[in-house]
Amino acid sequence: MKIGKSTVPESAICGSDDETIVVRGHDLCRDLIGQLSFTDYFWLLVTGQRPNATASRVLDATLVAIAEHGLVPSVQASRMTLAAAPDAIQGAVAAGILGCGSVILGASETAGRLFLRIDALAKEKSLSLEAAAEVVVRELRANKQAIPGYGHPLHKDRDPRVARLFAVGAEAGTPGHFVAIAEAVESVLPGLTGRDLRLNVSAAIPAVLLDAGFPVGALKGVPILARTASLIAHLLEEQIKPIGFVLSHAGSKAVGYDGSVPAGFVAGEA
Amino acid sequence: MKIGKSTVPESAICGSDDETIVVRGHDLCRDLIGQLSFTDYFWLLVTGQRPNATASRVLDATLVAIAEHGLVPSVQASRMTLAAAPDAIQGAVAAGILGCGSVILGASETAGRLFLRIDALAKEKSLSLEAAAEVVVRELRANKQAIPGYGHPLHKDRDPRVARLFAVGAEAGTPGHFVAIAEAVESVLPGLTGRDLRLNVSAAIPAVLLDAGFPVGALKGVPILARTASLIAHLLEEQIKPIGFVLSHAGSKAVGYDGSVPAGFVAGEA
Amino acid sequence: MKIGKSTVPESAICGSDDETIVVRGHDLCRDLIGQLSFTDYFWLLVTGQRPNATASRVLDATLVAIAEHGLVPSVQASRMTLAAAPDAIQGAVAAGILGCGSVILGASETAGRLFLRIDALAKEKSLSLEAAAEVVVRELRANKQAIPGYGHPLHKDRDPRVARLFAVGAEAGTPGHFVAIAEAVESVLPGLTGRDLRLNVSAAIPAVLLDAGFPVGALKGVPILARTASLIAHLLEEQIKPIGFVLSHAGSKAVGYDGSVPAGFVAGEA
Amino acid sequence: MKIGKSTVPESAICGSDDETIVVRGHDLCRDLIGQLSFTDYFWLLVTGQRPNATASRVLDATLVAIAEHGLVPSVQASRMTLAAAPDAIQGAVAAGILGCGSVILGASETAGRLFLRIDALAKEKSLSLEAAAEVVVRELRANKQAIPGYGHPLHKDRDPRVARLFAVGAEAGTPGHFVAIAEAVESVLPGLTGRDLRLNVSAAIPAVLLDAGFPVGALKGVPILARTASLIAHLLEEQIKPIGFVLSHAGSKAVGYDGSVPAGFVAGEA
Repeated sequence: MKIGKSTVPESAICGSDDETIVVRGHDLCRDLIGQLSFTDYFWLLVTGQRPNATASRVLDATLVAIAEHGLVPSVQASRMTLAAAPDAIQGAVAAGILGCGSVILGASETAGRLFLRIDALAKEKSLSLEAAAEVVVRELRANKQAIPGYGHPLHKDRDPRVARLFAVGAEAGTPGHFVAIAEAVESVLPGLTGRDLRLNVSAAIPAVLLDAGFPVGALKGVPILARTASLIAHLLEEQIKPIGFVLSHAGSKAVGYDGSVPAGFVAGEA
Repeated sequence: MKIGKSTVPESAICGSDDETIVVRGHDLCRDLIGQLSFTDYFWLLVTGQRPNATASRVLDATLVAIAEHGLVPSVQASRMTLAAAPDAIQGAVAAGILGCGSVILGASETAGRLFLRIDALAKEKSLSLEAAAEVVVRELRANKQAIPGYGHPLHKDRDPRVARLFAVGAEAGTPGHFVAIAEAVESVLPGLTGRDLRLNVSAAIPAVLLDAGFPVGALKGVPILARTASLIAHLLEEQIKPIGFVLSHAGSKAVGYDGSVPAGFVAGEA
Repeated sequence: MKIGKSTVPESAICGSDDETIVVRGHDLCRDLIGQLSFTDYFWLLVTGQRPNATASRVLDATLVAIAEHGLVPSVQASRMTLAAAPDAIQGAVAAGILGCGSVILGASETAGRLFLRIDALAKEKSLSLEAAAEVVVRELRANKQAIPGYGHPLHKDRDPRVARLFAVGAEAGTPGHFVAIAEAVESVLPGLTGRDLRLNVSAAIPAVLLDAGFPVGALKGVPILARTASLIAHLLEEQIKPIGFVLSHAGSKAVGYDGSVPAGFVAGEA
Repeated sequence: MKIGKSTVPESAICGSDDETIVVRGHDLCRDLIGQLSFTDYFWLLVTGQRPNATASRVLDATLVAIAEHGLVPSVQASRMTLAAAPDAIQGAVAAGILGCGSVILGASETAGRLFLRIDALAKEKSLSLEAAAEVVVRELRANKQAIPGYGHPLHKDRDPRVARLFAVGAEAGTPGHFVAIAEAVESVLPGLTGRDLRLNVSAAIPAVLLDAGFPVGALKGVPILARTASLIAHLLEEQIKPIGFVLSHAGSKAVGYDGSVPAGFVAGEA
């Protein structure tokens, strides 16, 4: 069954023969293994180019910033899955990755696109970054859309990772243009929303990565790769020091049954 | 890249042309849609044969028995995944299915194979079912293997679903041979283990399905199909009456951090 | 870490104690097992109500219509996954379910919502169904949105399942109002699009299910539950008659490598 | 519902309060972001310790060696999933990760444990590595178990990545003891199996990682993390240069339908 338009059936990522594996034009064994970090290899796989030292440092910093934050929902789902299906660790990793959606981790790409819009608008209309930010934020609010990357349930001030990422970006030599855009958005939010929504890591990451030359379409891959490292660590801990059933027990005690019941029934633990 | 041995590249499940879809030899539109239940269609897809009335009733009963049991770990993982990634319900269903592993749902197949071994041994050595059961259970214990399908964390007596499933199997006209085997295992367990492990639904299901002629290799599909129905219901409820973040909040409060800390750090909510 | 607004922490689907499992207000063992089909149980889980005979027949028919259609992409992905990870059938089922997205299976809900909009508009503005259909289709086209549920890559005429589903809906006694809306859309499409896009099964299913009283928010669960049955059948066949590596071998031969290469490299099989 | 034994409900990976995120005892912002690579952070997350320079270099090399190898089955499944469900890239990543099972990627851990057994046996019985390897390989064959990590469908000689990884391990200063064990196994295989099975990357990776001090229980995480990088790159390419439906079209043409058919039916494309 043919579905979809015909496409040029080629991929530019990897080819191989009996002796050689070629990745983005490089001989994997001769040119890559032992000669660049996994982080730089990720940049190469995604973009087709090796990152310069600035880009490499920034990508490492963003991956480290976002990977781990304790028993977040996707990590809990993952650990519960391993407890229920201990023979297939890849299933538990996959379950955790399925929680990498828009609410908790997906804002990195949407924030990046927000910054690009502000950048384009400022250039097109010769506006200051603050003025362009105000226009774009008003549009979002008019369409009842959330402002991706601002506010945080635990860190009421700026998320502590933001300042550190911006400092690393500056130390690494990025131009800081998108950081300035991210800060422009933060500066206009109180006036437009009545709320003091501070930059969080989901906006800081695209800001520094765009400053380092990372393609906006690839931003969503960064939280996913990072979270995979955390999931693996948590699952390895789960195999030695299990808490999966503690988590599910706590969850089931926290939620009751409010449907109808037959006469005489008294709900125990759900 | 060729991986794996060459195989006859054919499937016997479904073929189609411009006008007709053929499933297991039947014209889907002419012979199947509106003419058999989804449960019977599942039996046909899996076995290549339509079930008789006895088999149909038993399969329905087992699917109904196993599908729903509240906020079990895989349902919690699924609801948390939807809360974190609300745009992709198929991701949340998949996350829940990944929890259908050996601990909670997988015992149906292993119990089925246990019963087949006891059946074969009894015939081969002319033993009573209890004697054959004792031999096989001793082997499992000698290999430090669990007895699949016996005992239950909540229902200290027999799981209430067991009696009902056995009654349905009898009403539907099954021979009851594998039910007898399942009960033989239950009768020998106290003497061999010192524990009163009663039949639970994971052993009852293969017993009645084997009595109804269901192939043992397909047993593991039954809990998976059943659980999918429950997951869909829970996810639809999650979209209207969310509890996903309540579950993760309860989980994170139940588990502390016991790694080392920098001087002056006091752990808040993880 | 608290994420999300506080919500009433209750679920209305299932509660249990030592002796009784209550599902949607019914005693599972006393009232449900052996007393209703798995299809009817699915309706009960999802809606909280047992279906009448009309609804039961229509739901069965739609599940049977949509479950199986051969080696579609999600089934291929599933079989390849089992070939690569044979120890975890739930992982392969999950992989197949992850392909149940908007392109191939998700149109059922969007088509259902389209029909509801046309229904509401016709009532609100006292329009004929054709006139209301024309208004709504024009809107979709103006917003460059696809018309969900019309056209099919293989069946150039109406998908053969459509007529059968509509006939079952009529035989079962549904009012046929949403079927009329679905046909109204089909009648206006040539004039508005210049293309003869015929109803396919993704529009037929919501039409008959809405006529049977199925809630629109639950429509997306129907293809997912149905597809799970097919995946299980294919995976059981994969264990006996494997084609997973035949599929991946064919795929890798169909796509070349068009990135740059080191001097002297000749691509073999990718 | 309480399932499972009670456990000490603590995790040693991450804790946080309003101001500080602590990971394995370190202040994430003050001590980690911008100060170590993502690879080193992965080692820290998994083991609780920061790697030395030798370990860091070896882990980078193994991740780079294993991440990408073109349109392998899990990558094809992933790209097909994105083509079918384009709105949820995390679903497509998860689908690809579900193919990281025993056949293609899982051998790293099993090979690592094989090497540890040979090491322990050699020490316990004062045997040479070759003699110990022979004993252990004979055991595997007697139990009809595969020898993990030897042989490769494409690279008939040693997989080219093996020599490079061993060279990196030596350059980085590892003791080379497990590399010697891996080579001892290779040297005894022809005599025991009659086949010239050469080391492949799935054995080389645990050899150099064990030499670098990486815990054997964490070995399985390495191919999973590495593969995630490749999946992200392929999915980003799929969004721009789609081949998902080309893959499924090729697959469906490669497999026929061999079930029975109604009279007059001629199978078209499945």
